[in-house]
Amino acid sequence: MVQKYGGSSLATVSQVRQVADRVGALARSGRRVVVVVSAQGDTTDELIGRAGAVNPHPAGHELDQLLATGETASAALMAMALQHSGLAATALSGSRSGILATGPHGAGVIVAIDTEQLRTLLDAGQVVVIAGFQGVTADGDIITLGRGGSDTTAVAVAAELRAGHCEIYSDVRGVYTADPRVVPDARLMPDIDIDVMTEMAFAGARVMHSRAVELAALYDVDILVGRSTATRTGTRIHRLHRRDGNDMLEDRTAVMAVVHDTDIARITLRTHDTPDPSPAVFRFLAEESIPADMTTVASAPGGGFSLGLTVHRSHAADVSRSFSDLMAPRRHGVEVEDQVAKVSIVGQGLLSRPEYASRMLASLVGSGISARSLSASQLRVSVTVPSSDAVRAVGLLHSEFGLGAEAGAMPASLSPRP
Amino acid sequence: MVQKYGGSSLATVSQVRQVADRVGALARSGRRVVVVVSAQGDTTDELIGRAGAVNPHPAGHELDQLLATGETASAALMAMALQHSGLAATALSGSRSGILATGPHGAGVIVAIDTEQLRTLLDAGQVVVIAGFQGVTADGDIITLGRGGSDTTAVAVAAELRAGHCEIYSDVRGVYTADPRVVPDARLMPDIDIDVMTEMAFAGARVMHSRAVELAALYDVDILVGRSTATRTGTRIHRLHRRDGNDMLEDRTAVMAVVHDTDIARITLRTHDTPDPSPAVFRFLAEESIPADMTTVASAPGGGFSLGLTVHRSHAADVSRSFSDLMAPRRHGVEVEDQVAKVSIVGQGLLSRPEYASRMLASLVGSGISARSLSASQLRVSVTVPSSDAVRAVGLLHSEFGLGAEAGAMPASLSPRP
Repeated sequence: MVQKYGGSSLATVSQVRQVADRVGALARSGRRVVVVVSAQGDTTDELIGRAGAVNPHPAGHELDQLLATGETASAALMAMALQHSGLAATALSGSRSGILATGPHGAGVIVAIDTEQLRTLLDAGQVVVIAGFQGVTADGDIITLGRGGSDTTAVAVAAELRAGHCEIYSDVRGVYTADPRVVPDARLMPDIDIDVMTEMAFAGARVMHSRAVELAALYDVDILVGRSTATRTGTRIHRLHRRDGNDMLEDRTAVMAVVHDTDIARITLRTHDTPDPSPAVFRFLAEESIPADMTTVASAPGGGFSLGLTVHRSHAADVSRSFSDLMAPRRHGVEVEDQVAKVSIVGQGLLSRPEYASRMLASLVGSGISARSLSASQLRVSVTVPSSDAVRAVGLLHSEFGLGAEAGAMPASLSPRP
Repeated sequence: MVQKYGGSSLATVSQVRQVADRVGALARSGRRVVVVVSAQGDTTDELIGRAGAVNPHPAGHELDQLLATGETASAALMAMALQHSGLAATALSGSRSGILATGPHGAGVIVAIDTEQLRTLLDAGQVVVIAGFQGVTADGDIITLGRGGSDTTAVAVAAELRAGHCEIYSDVRGVYTADPRVVPDARLMPDIDIDVMTEMAFAGARVMHSRAVELAALYDVDILVGRSTATRTGTRIHRLHRRDGNDMLEDRTAVMAVVHDTDIARITLRTHDTPDPSPAVFRFLAEESIPADMTTVASAPGGGFSLGLTVHRSHAADVSRSFSDLMAPRRHGVEVEDQVAKVSIVGQGLLSRPEYASRMLASLVGSGISARSLSASQLRVSVTVPSSDAVRAVGLLHSEFGLGAEAGAMPASLSPRP
């Protein structure tokens, strides 16, 4: 059994004790238990703040070393709490747990896990507590795994231990048809297909990071996400087949949830001449490991190109400055829109049936919301809207596709259209 | 056991007899067998030609009635051949087989299958031969299912019979890492993940249509595609987990195949004023059931919009004319590029790791191929290239990502980069 506890579940001493009680009960029932922990509460942000106060541009090597202490401390505390309750427990930092990683500092990827020590400890009846979010390079350097790192650690450990199952606990009850803070009648989904979840996570659903879900999909690890204080409810993320629903073969309800992300910025680069700036732009994004979404490249009527893309807002300044550097001395312009939000519908087969994009746009435009930069794939249709309209847009689409608690039984294809 | 035979496997009397022998051997071994057949050889094209000679704009109702005869005849012939070999066999047209469909003529979708008669016949030891590509509406009208219709029929029947498995036979050996007519060292893939296959099919892989694969994914039907004259080899399309490969957790080979489609056109609509034309455009595409891909919407610096999308070439004239109708009397321009091809890399997690798009562009541009209209999702990155460069582009990318027979054992991430 692999369980991961997020920082908000470990913020206070009493929370750490509560989690230790849960884990202890499981261990005493005879299960082999691995616990992966995040840094307590806002520790990571505090550490970043402290680093910035000392040096506005800290080196990646040192920043990773600093940040990794958050999870390492958390793991030590959890193991102490377990030991205090009379259990045999061992805390392992990322390097001690055999998690081998590579890539740039701050954005590492796990390449392998040496599970020998892990298995030895488990065989000896120990509860093993692993510091999430970190790994060690072949050279012995500590490297952090970037956003979603602890979830990724937990899934990777579950995959390598052939556990087939992984539980991710935080302060959210599970996966909803829309953000429940924004849409009051959003439904908690008991199950969601793992590929659809990957897309939801990439589109902005906070409950889990897409790379962790993706790894789970590849290695056939079922995930349960839920609140650490709750009993076993929440959302199961796994291979979901629709057979048991009341959908009818091809005429089914394809839209499953609405996701929004207000932490984005839209960046548009315009050139007035050839060549196409895309290769240079994508090389830069690859080198810096900056995921971009909703890429549009259009050639302008008078020659030149307009290249637009959406990145996490924290990358906006860096990306726009780098675009200017890349294009100099060519005549060009870079526009940054940071008062925008990404709103997406996710589901299956959305491209095959063009009605979904059409209904999405009609619903938004009919309510006076300007939807831009449409980008569509089989699993997701995304648009950008003004930030001030994001909440309203999510509510409109949630209702348009009949996702609410009341309308739950009615297939979206029968719901009234505008 | 549900088997589907394509038109090229049934073109001649001797081919029909060969297939009947295969099916007969299976039935004599005690299996319950359902056979779904396409129209023989080029019958459908011939019928369309004949309709056009009589009326350049035939009504959908009559055109569907005409086209459905191709598969109905084929089913009758197959049942006759089976009966001639001494087997009990019954041919059913789409309406007799209980396939209920809805939607516009020429682009129907299956909503349900009444399997009662099918089961009764199978229980009585009959081989049932179903005419593919057609269904019947609630009003009793014949409706054809559009592209990929017979594959969809076969998968839907397998789903409703809970067969769990479906075999699709045609004149291709299976799914390759690229079109083997274009890339000599393309590898036949013994297995492919069903979600990746959906994306490959949408991107232009001819071996199966994306809607049939999508239905198989939803209803958990494994598919075997292969050549009807071969013994049981081919490609298995199913939920594929990478555990058994030699890939390393997150640092894996994500690109699985290169797909190209030369039957596309790129259409760009430019307006010089607001509002955004997207809602009107998508409403039109939805009403006409025209799937569009690689949509890019960019706002122009001086006001106005540029909306680009890619459609099947057969829709290009209709779409561009309709764009003009939709925009009149606004000042606008519509540009149709029909000397372009779509080239895609497919795999998993392609957005999460920006290196894939970067390597794709660098490889193409480094060889003097202009790649336009980049569109990316987790499962696919597509660009348009000049038609004359399509074959070269496919070969370049196939080699860039190490997909060839020789390089097969080497992960792409270790292959030399430009």
